[in-house]
Amino acid sequence: MYQDALKKYLDDLAAKLPAPGGGSAAALTAATGAALISMVANFTIGKEKYKSAEDEIKNVLSSSEDLRRKLTNLVDQDVTAYKKLSSAYKLAKDSPEDKRKRHQAIQEALKEALAAPLEVCKCCHQAVKLCPIIAEKGNLNLISDVGVAVAFLESGFESALLNVEINLKNIKDEQFILGIREILEPMEKEVDAISQEVTSGVKKNLTR
Amino acid sequence: MYQDALKKYLDDLAAKLPAPGGGSAAALTAATGAALISMVANFTIGKEKYKSAEDEIKNVLSSSEDLRRKLTNLVDQDVTAYKKLSSAYKLAKDSPEDKRKRHQAIQEALKEALAAPLEVCKCCHQAVKLCPIIAEKGNLNLISDVGVAVAFLESGFESALLNVEINLKNIKDEQFILGIREILEPMEKEVDAISQEVTSGVKKNLTR
Repeated sequence: MYQDALKKYLDDLAAKLPAPGGGSAAALTAATGAALISMVANFTIGKEKYKSAEDEIKNVLSSSEDLRRKLTNLVDQDVTAYKKLSSAYKLAKDSPEDKRKRHQAIQEALKEALAAPLEVCKCCHQAVKLCPIIAEKGNLNLISDVGVAVAFLESGFESALLNVEINLKNIKDEQFILGIREILEPMEKEVDAISQEVTSGVKKNLTR
Repeated sequence: MYQDALKKYLDDLAAKLPAPGGGSAAALTAATGAALISMVANFTIGKEKYKSAEDEIKNVLSSSEDLRRKLTNLVDQDVTAYKKLSSAYKLAKDSPEDKRKRHQAIQEALKEALAAPLEVCKCCHQAVKLCPIIAEKGNLNLISDVGVAVAFLESGFESALLNVEINLKNIKDEQFILGIREILEPMEKEVDAISQEVTSGVKKNLTR
């Protein structure tokens, strides 16, 4: 059914290939989380029981679909950026001039390679903020799917964050590093707090 | 590059369709985690620096590839099981005899629907146990990918568990419920403990 289409990506992910890697996979898992928010919204809209929240749920759907589109694009963007970084590392390092050029090319490629997982973090953060609304006002028959969505968005965020960190580790520009950390730290706290709250709400609902 | 192949699955996941849903998505995320273990193993095997652990890493690869294959199959199995449950709920409930038959069909379909996410839990548990070995003895350049793998396997486990729970909620056979909980509770503890340990090891490595 679906596994044939998914197999090529998973085969390439598992293989000894420069890309796709963890950054691309983080975008896929996050896109899966966004798709599940859309699914719950789609099973809520049009139902008499949930009519009072219909406009709000339509807004959630519009946002989750927008984020899903962005995240699906990021599955490939991360691959492209990684290939560029890989080429920079392969530049000649014979003369001091070669070394200087190689260093500069690597530093630029690292900043570019970091852009894709940073964008994944931002999208996950936006998508996680949709979860409390859909958990509270969405179709209760699909409450476990809200739990799955938030779990994937959180692990997508954490995974993309690791991919930001591995690039930061080799970046020499301290101002740049500080700037990135200032963006990500409050985001991480909010993602953690919201996903804990949503997960415990979902679990309560499932075991009562 | 890859997004076209992934789009059909994500579109159907987001859509108002009985399946795929969260259970199938849990299998996909877990398969992605298993693929990342294989990737790290593939980038370790054959390297002089990691020669002493080569046999162990080859065993990890063989297990992770086996688990990836099972998990990829489960992406579709969950879809099939869900459709059967959906049909059972649609059976006639006019006469007491109809009601009895419908109840029995639903109870059977619930147990079947639970089998796929239960299997995902078992595969995630097996795959998580490979992570400490690959974190300790695998290619250190790919340490962030080990972190991504364990994050996906943990969220795959938790997500599959929610899908077991939502089926258990409607199952009336108390002995069956107890049997399932006895399998899953120690597994969940082990998955949590190992993934916390691996994640903190990966983070230490990335920030030093």
